[in-house]
Amino acid sequence: MTEVVLTKDISGIAASSGIEIAKAFRLENPELIVEKNTVTNVDLEVKRFEQALESTKGEVEKIKEHTSQNLGGDNAEIFEAHLLVLNDPELINQIKDKIQIEHFNAEFALQEVVNMFVSMFEALDNEYMKERAADIRDVAKRILSHLLGVTIPNPSLISEEVIIIAEDLSPSDTAQLNRQFVKGFTTNIGGRTSHSAIMARSMEIPAVVGTKTVMADIENGDVVILDGLSGKVIVNPTEEVTKEYNMKKAAYEVQKTEWAKLINEQTVTKDGEHVELAANIGKPEDLNGVLENGGEGVGLYRTEFLYMGRTQLPTEEEQFAAFKTVLEDMEGKPVVIRTLDIGGDKELPYLELPKEMNPFLGFRAIRLCLEMQDMFRTQLRALLRASVYGNLKIMFPMIATLDEFWSAKALLEEEKQKLLSEGKQVAEKIELGIMVEIPSTAILADQFAKEVDFFSIGTNDLIQYTMAADRMNQRVSYLYQPYSPSILRLVKMVIDAAHAEGKWAGMCGEMAGDETAIPLLLGLGLDEFSMSATSILKARSQILRLSKKEMKNLAEEALQMKTTNEVIEAVKEIMK
Amino acid sequence: MTEVVLTKDISGIAASSGIEIAKAFRLENPELIVEKNTVTNVDLEVKRFEQALESTKGEVEKIKEHTSQNLGGDNAEIFEAHLLVLNDPELINQIKDKIQIEHFNAEFALQEVVNMFVSMFEALDNEYMKERAADIRDVAKRILSHLLGVTIPNPSLISEEVIIIAEDLSPSDTAQLNRQFVKGFTTNIGGRTSHSAIMARSMEIPAVVGTKTVMADIENGDVVILDGLSGKVIVNPTEEVTKEYNMKKAAYEVQKTEWAKLINEQTVTKDGEHVELAANIGKPEDLNGVLENGGEGVGLYRTEFLYMGRTQLPTEEEQFAAFKTVLEDMEGKPVVIRTLDIGGDKELPYLELPKEMNPFLGFRAIRLCLEMQDMFRTQLRALLRASVYGNLKIMFPMIATLDEFWSAKALLEEEKQKLLSEGKQVAEKIELGIMVEIPSTAILADQFAKEVDFFSIGTNDLIQYTMAADRMNQRVSYLYQPYSPSILRLVKMVIDAAHAEGKWAGMCGEMAGDETAIPLLLGLGLDEFSMSATSILKARSQILRLSKKEMKNLAEEALQMKTTNEVIEAVKEIMK
Repeated sequence: MTEVVLTKDISGIAASSGIEIAKAFRLENPELIVEKNTVTNVDLEVKRFEQALESTKGEVEKIKEHTSQNLGGDNAEIFEAHLLVLNDPELINQIKDKIQIEHFNAEFALQEVVNMFVSMFEALDNEYMKERAADIRDVAKRILSHLLGVTIPNPSLISEEVIIIAEDLSPSDTAQLNRQFVKGFTTNIGGRTSHSAIMARSMEIPAVVGTKTVMADIENGDVVILDGLSGKVIVNPTEEVTKEYNMKKAAYEVQKTEWAKLINEQTVTKDGEHVELAANIGKPEDLNGVLENGGEGVGLYRTEFLYMGRTQLPTEEEQFAAFKTVLEDMEGKPVVIRTLDIGGDKELPYLELPKEMNPFLGFRAIRLCLEMQDMFRTQLRALLRASVYGNLKIMFPMIATLDEFWSAKALLEEEKQKLLSEGKQVAEKIELGIMVEIPSTAILADQFAKEVDFFSIGTNDLIQYTMAADRMNQRVSYLYQPYSPSILRLVKMVIDAAHAEGKWAGMCGEMAGDETAIPLLLGLGLDEFSMSATSILKARSQILRLSKKEMKNLAEEALQMKTTNEVIEAVKEIMK
Repeated sequence: MTEVVLTKDISGIAASSGIEIAKAFRLENPELIVEKNTVTNVDLEVKRFEQALESTKGEVEKIKEHTSQNLGGDNAEIFEAHLLVLNDPELINQIKDKIQIEHFNAEFALQEVVNMFVSMFEALDNEYMKERAADIRDVAKRILSHLLGVTIPNPSLISEEVIIIAEDLSPSDTAQLNRQFVKGFTTNIGGRTSHSAIMARSMEIPAVVGTKTVMADIENGDVVILDGLSGKVIVNPTEEVTKEYNMKKAAYEVQKTEWAKLINEQTVTKDGEHVELAANIGKPEDLNGVLENGGEGVGLYRTEFLYMGRTQLPTEEEQFAAFKTVLEDMEGKPVVIRTLDIGGDKELPYLELPKEMNPFLGFRAIRLCLEMQDMFRTQLRALLRASVYGNLKIMFPMIATLDEFWSAKALLEEEKQKLLSEGKQVAEKIELGIMVEIPSTAILADQFAKEVDFFSIGTNDLIQYTMAADRMNQRVSYLYQPYSPSILRLVKMVIDAAHAEGKWAGMCGEMAGDETAIPLLLGLGLDEFSMSATSILKARSQILRLSKKEMKNLAEEALQMKTTNEVIEAVKEIMK
């Protein structure tokens, strides 16, 4: 008789490298159903509510502490806000009143009062108050779960090794993941550039996203193999398959050890051509990862994080301090700082920008900065003042026309003159470049190259505009094609234009760290590759094995191909 | 003593040609404020409500009749729906109940019941019911205005010559405009490609949009000069200025008479090169305008209108009949029919498509048709069957990759084989082309040219994707730059690619009929210009005066320029 094992193979998108085997932990929110009842013993009901309230406080305190210890204080801030709600007498007393005066059961009283507060806050058309509404809703869900005796999963409290199974992971979900126990995750939705995928790479845990079926196919406690290299998820594997994957895992560990030896190596191709491998960062704290992974510079410092999670704009001093730290820590290595890229899918609650029908085609980044000049000038001053502490390059995002570049440059020049006349120090020469992420700019790169000092290609946006497909929209995600000959042609235009004027061209989109893209980009002549810090050593190992001359031939063939698939096949063939 | 005249000069975007002088008519909705009162004489209050109801019915009947007589039955349909609401016993009786039982005043009773119905319908997440909610809201506003004794302006009832002043004009506003009396309009918002601008050109009345201030600067009864040639609006002009504009108006009339002589002329440049001037149409009825204006073909038949203003998909027979009519009426002249381009900003209530964060970058046109294959196949069958009645060319919209084109072509081939096996007739050779409106497709035009029979450049979308700027979004409308060197370069890639394979390239976006663009497009080698029928004669008159060789030099210079302004200046210089 043969043994019957319910093994399942699921395929998804390999979003973060590594192989792990562990038990499944489903991260899902249970349905909380509230009935409306009349209670006779009102005092008992109030007591029941108070007990649920106390349990919730204890729980949130615990989550806050765990998060702070394991993931840092920043990630724990949201729970501080939740505790404020739990201790808000106005909210609590109104719920008690509803029980005492109207004789409602605690669940219904809670729901009534919370709904009132939430709709009041949401009606205010103020992003800050809307966030408060979300906090209240979160907290109410927790109290309700205690009243109903239903458990809400708390990822921060996980205390054994697991692989998370979820529909999707929100930023606040990922903020709570404990690297010690969470070995990886797999989700129904998402793609290589979705938030959860980027987080997984920065946490250095494997992830397989966009599987569509893991929530239907995997139960709590199932044994799961997560292969972030190939995008496979295997549920309840046979002994044989487990053995096979344990070997793959070991091989991957060996490979990682090999990569680690490359930390202080130069990135030079087989035929002796040097390229620069830099890192994308969001905060000064990210620099540890850059240095540990042998980054040769910072190719993209996203300054948005300085503006987020606050109630007002950061001051010149705050920004100056952050920029100075990064420049000093990089000890003269190049640091490309991008000016504020807000709007689109990135909102700032306190700016109250108008809602737009197509935010990705809207009022964002440099468009917004050229109008909100006070805000922009403050950032430019902070950058100029920091310039004397290292090798600063300033980059403007979302430039579509030369007029925009000239306007931004003029503001920078004005602030520089003001600082000098105030007796402040500013570096004599600061390279000034632009993101190339709008098709128009790539097409006109030869003209831009005469005016700017460098280009950095932002592929995430460039691809979505060139293909007219929102990269966050599942229904058109098949059109997000980094290897499309049309994208490669745009990349070539940008690189050739830079070189014709003696300038350099980099890339700071997800594509720059992608195994399939690297041979093509090398062949097209890209000078600088900026990626997640955790991708650098692998990329270096790959480039050391490649000949630039051969990759040039590959790229030239790819430029004349008709489809993305032809290009992928050609790369596969040469990488065999 | 000098005479004091409050003359004001306002500038906007010239959206439709012509000059008119008339009194201002402000089209604005008054604020209707409802108070909550208790009434003692309930019967009197019910009577008051019934009287308002009857007055409203009479008013709507009158508007319906006027609209039907002046603008055709299609435009009057919306008022048929309004009458149904006014005669709905469920709605009416509930309002009367609220007065009789709860002793509310009629205004408040109406508001209460209407709000309930509206929120009920809107909650259903069904576009059709949402439209019903809008009908109810419209009707309620009218009844309320009668109860409060406030007048709502009815553009369809205008009976003297006026120029309409409005914040913006919605499709239902423009549907009611009576060409006999409405001499033109000017709005605060909008651009050359907004709905109201396109309507003005099709109605052949001048329009100046995007003025920002006409609503603040113009009172009812002010005398207004509307100059749709230069985009100027002059309020209460001096006698001198009035005389000047009367002369300009006369000169424009003379020019129009000159243009009219060109109806049967060929479109040939000064140096003997022929191009084709075709028209964009939405309905078979539009063909009159095409023939009256000397159109040499239909360059774009938008089939969306067949799908709109209904509760279900059109049948194969309905579509076949429409296509057959157009092909027969054009008597062998080329007719390019575009397959369904729905989604984005164009919704179909009965399809219930999911809401998207960036609809312009979403699931629309060919993307949707390749998934909703039954719907698509029905249209393809209708097209194939109609092909024997004239010179049909089929065009797919929003093609981003060759894979999409091949898929669409395969479906067409399958339906063709089915029809032939059913013994139906299909033309032996039908040209098969694509819209080029996605940057990727323009960049890869050389590869597409090997597969398709023709290109038609859709500039409205191509520009918004290339510049990453939503053309409907006022805050980034400065980036909608048809004359940008980057756009001209894309247009050149498409035309050169077509010619290299012996194919033809046309353009069916707004740019094709634009006075500043025509010299450039001629110079770039465009074969076919498809535009609003009313622009054809003017365009022909312009082209007859141009030398293709000279325009080629102009275009070559423009391709090497840095900004849109440089290009505009160069065209102005050569057109002097």
